[in-house]
Amino acid sequence: MIRVVIIGAGNVAIHLSRAMVDSTRIRLVQIFSRSERNASSLPGSVPRTDDLGALAEADVYLVAVKDDAISALAPALKHLPGLVAHTSGTVSMDALAGVDRRAVFYPVQTFSKDRELDWKSIPLVLETSDPNDMGLLRSLAAELSDSIYVIDSAGRKKLHLAAVFANNFSNHMFRLSKEICLDNELSFDLLRPLILETASKVISMEPEAAQTGPARRKDRKVMSEQEDQLDAEKKEIYSLLSDSIATRYMETD
Amino acid sequence: MIRVVIIGAGNVAIHLSRAMVDSTRIRLVQIFSRSERNASSLPGSVPRTDDLGALAEADVYLVAVKDDAISALAPALKHLPGLVAHTSGTVSMDALAGVDRRAVFYPVQTFSKDRELDWKSIPLVLETSDPNDMGLLRSLAAELSDSIYVIDSAGRKKLHLAAVFANNFSNHMFRLSKEICLDNELSFDLLRPLILETASKVISMEPEAAQTGPARRKDRKVMSEQEDQLDAEKKEIYSLLSDSIATRYMETD
Repeated sequence: MIRVVIIGAGNVAIHLSRAMVDSTRIRLVQIFSRSERNASSLPGSVPRTDDLGALAEADVYLVAVKDDAISALAPALKHLPGLVAHTSGTVSMDALAGVDRRAVFYPVQTFSKDRELDWKSIPLVLETSDPNDMGLLRSLAAELSDSIYVIDSAGRKKLHLAAVFANNFSNHMFRLSKEICLDNELSFDLLRPLILETASKVISMEPEAAQTGPARRKDRKVMSEQEDQLDAEKKEIYSLLSDSIATRYMETD
Repeated sequence: MIRVVIIGAGNVAIHLSRAMVDSTRIRLVQIFSRSERNASSLPGSVPRTDDLGALAEADVYLVAVKDDAISALAPALKHLPGLVAHTSGTVSMDALAGVDRRAVFYPVQTFSKDRELDWKSIPLVLETSDPNDMGLLRSLAAELSDSIYVIDSAGRKKLHLAAVFANNFSNHMFRLSKEICLDNELSFDLLRPLILETASKVISMEPEAAQTGPARRKDRKVMSEQEDQLDAEKKEIYSLLSDSIATRYMETD
């Protein structure tokens, strides 16, 4: 049985706590939260505290707070008897300054309060300051997911950068697409099934094989017609991304 | 019973023909294809021809060929006794020059040969030159989908432009993300579940609400660190898209 305390009550903490109360080999002994804002989204069966001095004894403390709050919290976590792991994709493990047994437990996923997630498929990226702690962290991860990776802080930064393109920027493409719809009195519902299929393809296909459209086939006529229908900002994005696509495909494709 | 001939044997034709042989109120009487390349992907029960002069009698002829082949094909379709509808998102209905009863039957989806699709959820965008033909085209569409829209050629061009952002450009973000992974010896499998969840969110949420990341929270420190890790092309894209995101969120978000 691995005893866990979760520090934080945001979306990551909510999803982690729900997954952990469902596990028979993890015992979630406490949740720390300064505010009661998300209290109703947390499992009611788990004791809560708002006092950092009253954290329960545990094997692993998972710090699921905002990126820029991690280093400020570190001094209060120094005395803890277990492994202290933050859950951020961007923050270095050493942001837990002064903590003896530091670690990272980063779930590569986007978390919203109201969506059900399949933890088994969420990649968990692990790092520990002491190699002897990797066994414990890996055991905890294996209770939640079938997809476990050991990656250091430098590699994790690159991964997070790749995730910005995969998640933030693709979502922004959806937003720009919606704006074009609304500007032309078209329902964005027309495009939701296409968006889902675009992403679903990438589960089993490579994105370079899935690419279609005027830029891939270097259809200059359609591209120039389309650019002319856009405002200055979207035109610049259209042009830059079309060039970026076109240079990756040979004339003979 | 609506009698249909499909002209073409590409991905759209393959998926249309499979859906139509499963329908009890559509009779797919013939498929025209010049080549035998995709023959094994087409329903074996449907007669095929490679002779435009030997097209069977039907109520609707669905022209599922490449965009730039539509107008070249039009003269050969002039004499047909039924409604002639192309399936393109970009081509004007009037590309079917000389055809008396012209129409468009555009499924807003990306088609790959080997993926199963749920036609019921695919939006079908309809247009007819003669308003009297809309009833027939709508009946045909209703046999396949629950999501039917009547949009003229000008509106359809705007929709296709929005689809370029939703599909082509988001898929390119996945590719750039994969390139960053491979450059850093990280498996792209780390990001596939994130990509699927990013798109799945947009089925039930608005993209402006789903947005997260450094650009949304105007985290200049992370943004500048991330830009410095990119090559010139990706840096330009990162910068342009981050600005585009940041301008859409208030300081107080």
